[in-house]
Amino acid sequence: MNLLKELESYHIILASQSPRRQELLKEMDLDFEVRPMHVEEVHPAGLTPAEVVEYLSRLKLSTVDFSDFQENVLFIASDTIVVLEQEILEKPHDEEEAFRMLRKLSNRQHTVLSGVTVRTASHELTSHAESRVTFRELSEEEIRYYVAQYPPFDKAGAYGVQDWIGVVGIERIDGSFYNVMGLPTRLLWEMLRKMVLLEKK
Amino acid sequence: MNLLKELESYHIILASQSPRRQELLKEMDLDFEVRPMHVEEVHPAGLTPAEVVEYLSRLKLSTVDFSDFQENVLFIASDTIVVLEQEILEKPHDEEEAFRMLRKLSNRQHTVLSGVTVRTASHELTSHAESRVTFRELSEEEIRYYVAQYPPFDKAGAYGVQDWIGVVGIERIDGSFYNVMGLPTRLLWEMLRKMVLLEKK
Repeated sequence: MNLLKELESYHIILASQSPRRQELLKEMDLDFEVRPMHVEEVHPAGLTPAEVVEYLSRLKLSTVDFSDFQENVLFIASDTIVVLEQEILEKPHDEEEAFRMLRKLSNRQHTVLSGVTVRTASHELTSHAESRVTFRELSEEEIRYYVAQYPPFDKAGAYGVQDWIGVVGIERIDGSFYNVMGLPTRLLWEMLRKMVLLEKK
Repeated sequence: MNLLKELESYHIILASQSPRRQELLKEMDLDFEVRPMHVEEVHPAGLTPAEVVEYLSRLKLSTVDFSDFQENVLFIASDTIVVLEQEILEKPHDEEEAFRMLRKLSNRQHTVLSGVTVRTASHELTSHAESRVTFRELSEEEIRYYVAQYPPFDKAGAYGVQDWIGVVGIERIDGSFYNVMGLPTRLLWEMLRKMVLLEKK
């Protein structure tokens, strides 16, 4: 199956305002429209981190009324979190919170999880990817410089892997790099293939 | 030590024409000049892959006459190779060779090594980084599409990790992502720190 060719007959909508996700979807050579969904990102208590990101990626499409759409519309939503020893690090609200988060991440390994949901009028698929990221020891000066130069308020865990602090400070990544950037592209590719097969049935 | 501030007093020269290396050095927030060195990339027989990349990164600066330069000039050179089960995959010469290399990399893990040399008039440092990259199974159609759309003739192993085939086809990376892109930025940062300390003595 030539997946790129099959996907030409779909109208793809990315439900995200993240410029990183848009960039990555473009690098997958897909044509798409961007339509961020505004939902309050709350999840039930007691979920594992993997269940949280899967839940939130589904939630982002929960307000879409698929009866409004043509058969060939396909939505993609994703949610990414940073987990450090059971604690979920969200987006920081201010410089001090960003500073504290990066201090916690310094000289340790943490986990980045992304949930992805692909949905059409008739089918829904959800999955997640998990990567381990190890920062070297970051100096206070380096963290202050980064937070001041590249305010990370739209980023879970207060850093972008493609930003200065990621480039000079990450020791190693084990798993998908693009997952850490915000969209597990290789997983999404596989989900799109499954979806096209489901739709053909 | 504030490394970025210390490096302001150096004139940094990147001895590479690779746009990826230039981009990554920029993302490290360094000012630099680009001056590719033209040396024939041959190495003695019997070296390990790590010795090969270290040797070649040093070789790229071998034609520089440091007596021509001011004290504060600092050269950076890097060399990246792809190794699949003892075999070094170079840059492919044509579409068919690129196709064959990607067929070999499909559904297997390989190793990417980069050697880095940092050199001033009085000191030289060389080191290397190593990452493992796993491709999922790539279809013949996917490889043909990639090679036609994004001719990988300037890339060891016939792929760019940041290209379409890397985005949709790489299963996982274990180690530095930026090393796979062509410049192990976190290692280089550490080497620059060491060099500045050496120069201060």
